[in-house]
Amino acid sequence: MTRPTPLSGFPEWLPEQRLAEQQVLDRLRRTFELYGFSPLETRAVEPLDQLLRKGETSKEVYTLRRLQATDDDADELSLGLHFDLTVPFARYVLENAGKLQFPFRRYQIQKVWRGERPAAGRYREFLQADIDIVDRDTLPSHYEAEIPLVIGDALRALPIPPVTILVNNRKLCEGFYRGLGIEDPEEILRIVDKLDKVGPSVVKDEIAQKHGEARADACLALAGISAQDASFVDEVRKLGVEHPLLDEGVAELAAVVETAREHSPGLVRATLKIARGLDYYTGTVYETELAGFEQFGSICSGGRYDNLASAGKDVFPGVGISIGVSRLLGLLFKADALSVSRPVPTAVLVALWSEEERAVSNRIAASLRARGIATEVAPAPAKLGKQIRHAERRGIPFVWFPANGENPDQVKDIRSGEQVDAEGWAPPAEDIAPTLR
Amino acid sequence: MTRPTPLSGFPEWLPEQRLAEQQVLDRLRRTFELYGFSPLETRAVEPLDQLLRKGETSKEVYTLRRLQATDDDADELSLGLHFDLTVPFARYVLENAGKLQFPFRRYQIQKVWRGERPAAGRYREFLQADIDIVDRDTLPSHYEAEIPLVIGDALRALPIPPVTILVNNRKLCEGFYRGLGIEDPEEILRIVDKLDKVGPSVVKDEIAQKHGEARADACLALAGISAQDASFVDEVRKLGVEHPLLDEGVAELAAVVETAREHSPGLVRATLKIARGLDYYTGTVYETELAGFEQFGSICSGGRYDNLASAGKDVFPGVGISIGVSRLLGLLFKADALSVSRPVPTAVLVALWSEEERAVSNRIAASLRARGIATEVAPAPAKLGKQIRHAERRGIPFVWFPANGENPDQVKDIRSGEQVDAEGWAPPAEDIAPTLR
Repeated sequence: MTRPTPLSGFPEWLPEQRLAEQQVLDRLRRTFELYGFSPLETRAVEPLDQLLRKGETSKEVYTLRRLQATDDDADELSLGLHFDLTVPFARYVLENAGKLQFPFRRYQIQKVWRGERPAAGRYREFLQADIDIVDRDTLPSHYEAEIPLVIGDALRALPIPPVTILVNNRKLCEGFYRGLGIEDPEEILRIVDKLDKVGPSVVKDEIAQKHGEARADACLALAGISAQDASFVDEVRKLGVEHPLLDEGVAELAAVVETAREHSPGLVRATLKIARGLDYYTGTVYETELAGFEQFGSICSGGRYDNLASAGKDVFPGVGISIGVSRLLGLLFKADALSVSRPVPTAVLVALWSEEERAVSNRIAASLRARGIATEVAPAPAKLGKQIRHAERRGIPFVWFPANGENPDQVKDIRSGEQVDAEGWAPPAEDIAPTLR
Repeated sequence: MTRPTPLSGFPEWLPEQRLAEQQVLDRLRRTFELYGFSPLETRAVEPLDQLLRKGETSKEVYTLRRLQATDDDADELSLGLHFDLTVPFARYVLENAGKLQFPFRRYQIQKVWRGERPAAGRYREFLQADIDIVDRDTLPSHYEAEIPLVIGDALRALPIPPVTILVNNRKLCEGFYRGLGIEDPEEILRIVDKLDKVGPSVVKDEIAQKHGEARADACLALAGISAQDASFVDEVRKLGVEHPLLDEGVAELAAVVETAREHSPGLVRATLKIARGLDYYTGTVYETELAGFEQFGSICSGGRYDNLASAGKDVFPGVGISIGVSRLLGLLFKADALSVSRPVPTAVLVALWSEEERAVSNRIAASLRARGIATEVAPAPAKLGKQIRHAERRGIPFVWFPANGENPDQVKDIRSGEQVDAEGWAPPAEDIAPTLR
């Protein structure tokens, strides 16, 4: 077999990067659970008709086929890999509604797949960490204000640059466009969504062509509004457009911004140009900027969806947000902005005097593990220098020498070279486990 | 949309089952890390030629295709979902050998996919938890003795019935069959592998047909040997077969059994009928029985492989084992033998007097979370009885009532009905987080 090479679009981390990722996930989980979100996983596959029901990403679905499929299998359901965690979650809620307690809050950390053309920073397989709250029939809008608080706490628990959550409201935009007399607000949303990419003059021209210059100016003026408090309300009012849906959206967005201002100052900014690509959002929408990495786009996005989970007269409106973990870590690793204090879980390497005495070293390792200290035994009874170098290469900070002749058990910190009697020794708190930095 | 139904072969847990699974995985990880295994993940897909290189499961591979694939994509690599974690790990080691430190120890907890016909207890998507140790050029056989110790600790940390790890050695069997003058030992291994399924007389007939009755008797006698210590060595010797490979295998198996007997009495049993289906094993092989669930087969299997990771003159022999997490949990859930102490992470529900006072309840929740206590705020300012019933239905043990008029903040244990002043209150240690039982 020849040496394999990476597959474009399918990132894999080196062990110390995966260790960092694992610690990031543990901290996210910790915050999600503190807010009462339950862990959940759905299968990786969905029937194709589920996946193609909604959203622009449907064209990027990977379909599955058994290699040894025969004609008998022709009637097998067509399956595809999920491209996000929201569509499968909505399906799960419908399928298990009778066994769930509502409002139901869950977090879900899983890989998703999109068969896009690989490009810089665009993955075909990547990890997402989602939180969602769904309720039966109606979902109070205070949950739209809670989601940013959870994400703020979760991301602030990481040693990464500060984040700003940009918030808008679909009703606000739709109401505004309708108030202007525009009948297809979705079309305007799609045009405004490209604002950062193509610039205001292209957006203005595109809207003006069909709806006239005055309306185009109004849409651009709305998209230009941004504030960290409810002061955006006056700015919207000044544009002089009226529609009941606009009022609803303005009130909901004001509540999100004000709740965040009270509980987590500086976290949230009403940003009225935010549109989100997916078409299932019906209320608040979120995007998230990482300071210093704004040009790479949102690292955490979501919104409220009223119609994603419904069957007959059962409706389960929800609100959620998704952290693009692979994308976020890809950016941070590339910028050397996130790492771990050591590359392995192991704190102690127990040295080995001879292969015959392996049981002695094994017993020392077992007693350290029983105290919660991650320990390995040396691979071979090599010369002591070689055993120490092995620890050094692996990034293990301490080497334990079993008693030998008149020498009692001793422990060496191979970073400082300091060597002490092992009796009563314990690693300093900061060396017990690798930590993020 | 109509209500969706489950997909046969693609299991999904209810929230409280997933909470149990999550806790199982956390404990496994904890043990693996205590032994110095690093977390690792590989992508879910491999080039088809990698997947078809080895092993009987190759016929069960799921292949991928982009839904919108065009003729331009014809030259795209054929990809399939991995069917185990050993083949991808071997590929990862070859690909990244220059960046890894050897011996390299990693654990890997991921879904795998097999396009088998669904049957009771046979999944098409399931979770595996693997540990492996690989070295460059040669791998000392003491690692074959270490693997059962790790798994023993990991499984004994769970509130499940006791396990016995059954161990055999491919060299022992191959040497024995060759010593009998049989030229294709693989064939005999495949026949003996069916022993528990088809019974000894069928196995004997099948071997006798080609190799004569005396050899068939010898093979069956070997398969009948089983011992928790090195006493199996004498029983093998008594069969009077000689071959250098047999001696090597006997010595290695004796070392595995004796190491286990010293460090973890009762854990390991030399069981010479164990063969393992996959053809990449070259030394020790493992299977694991769960007391009371023996008829469902092995819950944790693996072995040593010398030739799985090699490119040109680079060889990376390894040894590993895989816990079939989905299968294990499926069995335990079905038998009501594993559950969690409560169905949600949340310990406290903060009641809500009015929607206007939500900020007050939010602040109480925030201060509880800052103390590491998982907390939710009530969905709506309903009557107090209704808020308490909401906590009950969700399985949340405590309700916190914010100060109201002359009443100070109070906390109610809704299981006992006991209500106390909240000042200085903390949940009992056993109620802070849900625990496995």
